[in-house]
Amino acid sequence: MRVLIIGAAGMIGRKLAERLARDGRLAGREISELTLVDSLEGPGITVADVSEPELVEARPDVIFDLAAVLSGEAEADFDVGYRVNVDGTRSLFEAVRAAEYRPRVVFSSSIAVFGPPLPGTIGDDHASTPATSYGTQKAIAELLLSDYSRRGFLDGVGIRLPTICVRPGAPNRAASSFFSSIVREPLNGKEAVLPVPETVRHWFASPRAAVGFLVRAAELDSPALGERRSITMPGVSATVGEQIAALRAVAGDEAVRRIRREPDETIMRIVSGWPGRFDTRRAHELGFRAETSFEEIVRVYVEDELAA
Amino acid sequence: MRVLIIGAAGMIGRKLAERLARDGRLAGREISELTLVDSLEGPGITVADVSEPELVEARPDVIFDLAAVLSGEAEADFDVGYRVNVDGTRSLFEAVRAAEYRPRVVFSSSIAVFGPPLPGTIGDDHASTPATSYGTQKAIAELLLSDYSRRGFLDGVGIRLPTICVRPGAPNRAASSFFSSIVREPLNGKEAVLPVPETVRHWFASPRAAVGFLVRAAELDSPALGERRSITMPGVSATVGEQIAALRAVAGDEAVRRIRREPDETIMRIVSGWPGRFDTRRAHELGFRAETSFEEIVRVYVEDELAA
Repeated sequence: MRVLIIGAAGMIGRKLAERLARDGRLAGREISELTLVDSLEGPGITVADVSEPELVEARPDVIFDLAAVLSGEAEADFDVGYRVNVDGTRSLFEAVRAAEYRPRVVFSSSIAVFGPPLPGTIGDDHASTPATSYGTQKAIAELLLSDYSRRGFLDGVGIRLPTICVRPGAPNRAASSFFSSIVREPLNGKEAVLPVPETVRHWFASPRAAVGFLVRAAELDSPALGERRSITMPGVSATVGEQIAALRAVAGDEAVRRIRREPDETIMRIVSGWPGRFDTRRAHELGFRAETSFEEIVRVYVEDELAA
Repeated sequence: MRVLIIGAAGMIGRKLAERLARDGRLAGREISELTLVDSLEGPGITVADVSEPELVEARPDVIFDLAAVLSGEAEADFDVGYRVNVDGTRSLFEAVRAAEYRPRVVFSSSIAVFGPPLPGTIGDDHASTPATSYGTQKAIAELLLSDYSRRGFLDGVGIRLPTICVRPGAPNRAASSFFSSIVREPLNGKEAVLPVPETVRHWFASPRAAVGFLVRAAELDSPALGERRSITMPGVSATVGEQIAALRAVAGDEAVRRIRREPDETIMRIVSGWPGRFDTRRAHELGFRAETSFEEIVRVYVEDELAA
């Protein structure tokens, strides 16, 4: 079993590579070759563009396509977002099609394909009406993945990742950064800024759960997928208030006191259009599993990032 | 008011051009210039490719984008379908963006963006999961239209047309051809072939209604559209049995006797995945109107095609 990870230098890509190296197996078969590719340098990484047809020359059995220009950059630079997230993805699919061997392609999509107006709980049949260029690009790539799968050019599974929380590392300028910061920074003895009210609700899964989704997507039987190749992943629906309560349960009042409230209208406006809760029946039927409480998400961060 | 119709040689394009020439006005303003473009020759048509940036040099106030490789051809030739329906549309949008003047762009989409499994009645929030390359290409173009509109590059309205019935002209090889043939041929004293059972249900509007949708889409106020730029058009949900009953009501038993039953498994399989009924609340609120019975659709054909 040859495995290719495109976008392997990112946080999820690195964690996936570590897990696969540790397991030594994927979808019940031994991994004979694990190739890590990214446009950025990193340990063990081959630097290449996602659209280079050479990537599939070794005919990997499973291709994880995690490469993307992220939300903020795709909104700031319209052309770069389309070039990487749409044209780059399509070039990869075309390279696979040209190689004529139908590998499993696991594509990381996002709940950003959903935009307002949204119901309180979003079901598996809900329309993709993205409110950002990033979400639009992911929705387009999902459509391509389905059509290329239907035509027999590849065997695709698209997984719509929740907001990943708690992200390790430093706060960044993404509008969603605070969802992780308000847990991570206090746990590390640092102050965090909370720009929105505690009533804001969102949809979360841990980095460990995200890696689990990718592995599950690689091993799923195609017939179980049926006509629809992209699936919203399970997660935990939590308000910011519930996030803080979970932090308190794990690390006490002292940690919670490190959260400083500093309302930011711009972030509030962006975040208010984001989904709060999903009914992910299909994902559950297909064996995808996430955490079941935000406290569990906090404990996963402590175990995976702080325990060592 | 300058108006550009791209794809003006097609059946709907020709009828739209005739109506605009007759009205002399659009969206409350006088039409000073009506330009008809198509890749095919025709009376009054400028032959050009949809992706030529010169098309928008005259800065038309309203652009009707009706150009498309149709369903059968897009399925038979994967590359041509994507080149015209995705890349051609995107090139047009890019040309408009480069011209920096934000015209109304009316894009003709299709109910082919919906695919199985489908509920009995499909609402405005239902997911686009197309079952064909044509439907995929239309869904991608809808996403582009929304994002280009949101970014302020153009002012788009996408309208998802029902199956147009009764199409004038000869039967063709499209799987949907019989829906028109079984009415049109008998009304013209000819025999028609019915390849599916009378229980098959589908979603129809007349060519006249389709032209009305395009005109309404050109005159809509942008704020009324809100975040969602593509709208499923109203229509008539009818079974083949109801189509035949309407033919009988208009033209009697003699016409109905010209329908010959000749079951075709392939056509039956294709058509069984097609939508049968929509709840088009949004379109109604925005002032789009279709026929209210299949008998009315038959009478429109008689008036518009046979009366003269």
